[in-house]
Amino acid sequence: MVHMMRPLTVLFLFFTTSSVISLKYRYKTYYYKQQVDHFGFTNVDKFPQRYLFCDESWNKNGGPIFFYCGNEGDISLFAENTGFNTTYSGYLTSEQALADYADLINHIKSTVKGAEKSPVIVFGGSYGGMLASWFRMKYPHIVDGAIAASAPILQFVGMTPCGKFGQVVTKDFTDQSKACSEGIKWINENWKLCRPLKNKEDLSYLKEFLTNVYGNLAMADYPYPASFLAPLPANPIMRVCEFLKHPNFDSTDFLLELFDGISVYFNYTKTARCLDHTKDASSLLGDEGWDFQACTEMVMPFCYDGKSDFFEPTPWNFTEYSEMCYSKWKVMPRPLMPEIQYGGSKIRAASNIVFSNGLLDPWSTGGVLKNLTDSLIAVNYPGRSSSPGSS
Amino acid sequence: MVHMMRPLTVLFLFFTTSSVISLKYRYKTYYYKQQVDHFGFTNVDKFPQRYLFCDESWNKNGGPIFFYCGNEGDISLFAENTGFNTTYSGYLTSEQALADYADLINHIKSTVKGAEKSPVIVFGGSYGGMLASWFRMKYPHIVDGAIAASAPILQFVGMTPCGKFGQVVTKDFTDQSKACSEGIKWINENWKLCRPLKNKEDLSYLKEFLTNVYGNLAMADYPYPASFLAPLPANPIMRVCEFLKHPNFDSTDFLLELFDGISVYFNYTKTARCLDHTKDASSLLGDEGWDFQACTEMVMPFCYDGKSDFFEPTPWNFTEYSEMCYSKWKVMPRPLMPEIQYGGSKIRAASNIVFSNGLLDPWSTGGVLKNLTDSLIAVNYPGRSSSPGSS
Repeated sequence: MVHMMRPLTVLFLFFTTSSVISLKYRYKTYYYKQQVDHFGFTNVDKFPQRYLFCDESWNKNGGPIFFYCGNEGDISLFAENTGFNTTYSGYLTSEQALADYADLINHIKSTVKGAEKSPVIVFGGSYGGMLASWFRMKYPHIVDGAIAASAPILQFVGMTPCGKFGQVVTKDFTDQSKACSEGIKWINENWKLCRPLKNKEDLSYLKEFLTNVYGNLAMADYPYPASFLAPLPANPIMRVCEFLKHPNFDSTDFLLELFDGISVYFNYTKTARCLDHTKDASSLLGDEGWDFQACTEMVMPFCYDGKSDFFEPTPWNFTEYSEMCYSKWKVMPRPLMPEIQYGGSKIRAASNIVFSNGLLDPWSTGGVLKNLTDSLIAVNYPGRSSSPGSS
Repeated sequence: MVHMMRPLTVLFLFFTTSSVISLKYRYKTYYYKQQVDHFGFTNVDKFPQRYLFCDESWNKNGGPIFFYCGNEGDISLFAENTGFNTTYSGYLTSEQALADYADLINHIKSTVKGAEKSPVIVFGGSYGGMLASWFRMKYPHIVDGAIAASAPILQFVGMTPCGKFGQVVTKDFTDQSKACSEGIKWINENWKLCRPLKNKEDLSYLKEFLTNVYGNLAMADYPYPASFLAPLPANPIMRVCEFLKHPNFDSTDFLLELFDGISVYFNYTKTARCLDHTKDASSLLGDEGWDFQACTEMVMPFCYDGKSDFFEPTPWNFTEYSEMCYSKWKVMPRPLMPEIQYGGSKIRAASNIVFSNGLLDPWSTGGVLKNLTDSLIAVNYPGRSSSPGSS
């Protein structure tokens, strides 16, 4: 979730459940001339929106359509940076993305023989999970149902306490080993002693880097090797904590142990010569797009108190955040946009959505964890992330 | 309905039903700094959106909010031309209008004491009725229910046969007097004989003018005097037809009778010195705005066959229509936009909407005339228009 963009690519799937494994990602690649702005006529440009199409096992007489709502990064090679189109960056919003999908499905239904009356089920994980659930809410005449995995639709201003995320990250490490968690807490409190950093700015970069690393590890703590945010082994938190079994805070050995630990995150492939703490490994995922979205519509407040979590106390400061956004993108965030557009937790008028969450995933704190009606269903896994977009 | 624009003005009402009459339109006028583009960050301008506010009889402890969705023309003086803001014309779409309302209601609820948890009922007629129903569909977390009067949400491409509208207009005149209807049919067939018109273009203007006059008369055929599209007496169709009781098609007297008839429409106030057939009387209503909308999103096909209606046979020609729009506004229409955005008749996932229609109103042909679910209710009046926006 850390880095996402208006999905320029969409996986479009026709299949029956039993054939998923045998398909092995065979698909055709098409392009649809998509409107840049769906809600106005000032900019009438179009762009070629790529989508992947698979009808191998589809019942061509109105069989259901499964529509994957995309996510951060390129769909065919998850960690490929697709580039951020600055010409149209102002149109990079969730509302435009949903309208992309609506137009595309309309196009498919009117051009693919046998698809005209097909039911449409949409799905996605993380940002794609939010899009899936919002797609059903806003376009129920096009989408019959949605499966929204690890979709933090409540991670916005005024919906979820900003400290929850850090608490789950902390718990994930503590559950692995209390010593590990204490080691990280010690570093967060005492890192200012570390000599090699030249100035305060370096220190703040490193702190931010590590904060992201811990969060990303908790988010991608799958029981199998994966390359979601970075190439990682199975159970990466366990692997990190193996290096921090008996931290001795009075010895510099401890700092080396930590370095070995976080190397699991940034250098599991052993190809990095050194750690560039100014660059988050997950920048692989086209972070400029998500960074822009986080600075405009997708404002998600995070804060840490150092007591209920192991991070350095950092309050949520919207003014500072806005100024940072303005200096970077020359736009001011609109933090109320998701609530006004989608309703936050006031979604009882919607229907046919399954929200799945892995409770170890820190993003689950912004997820829908309880059934809201008999067709707005929450499925919680006590274990790890449930996002199909990231598995 | 003929001429409308993105409502720049909104009547915002708090009241209890019993107090409506006693209020006599007392309200305060406020302005809200509204986003020009709600769905992107390329244009971050704001404009002062006027709204009228009335809380005289409101229960200030969470009483319901009644929200009027606006319509064509200025709200405080219905027939005043509010001017068409060409700077922002590209943002004149129904989606932006709904987002205006959502932001405005959010603003009201967070600033007016006691309104935070108020239920919100929206209502409107004609275009405002469409907006009311779509507002509930798209923002059910903000709108608890909608009353959509004379709202032709099915008057779009592929939803309703293009000839229906003309058939109801014809029926309205025939019901009044068969001779009247035949007189109009004769003119529509034979008007080319009329000498005073200088050239073909003049003739086509006049024909279009008369087509609009008949439609507007049918739409505004109220049993009481009103100034919706033009200052009109009660039962204007009856008054028009009084002049055409015994048409003699072989006499030029007939043309004079017709002139007297249509004078009911364009000159009931006796202030016009002559008939300017190049200008529709309903241009009072800010027609540039609606003309732009009809050329972009609100594409409503009309056609006439001269058999089931009394008009000159005119097929619906989308290519010609698009070319006309492009030459006038330099935009191409997007005729599928209403269906993709709002679903046409596929709105069974929505709830809490009452659609009311007067069956003599030709716009009812594009209305929802049957209950769709137990909370999508159709109320049909066999008589005249049911639009509160026009009464």
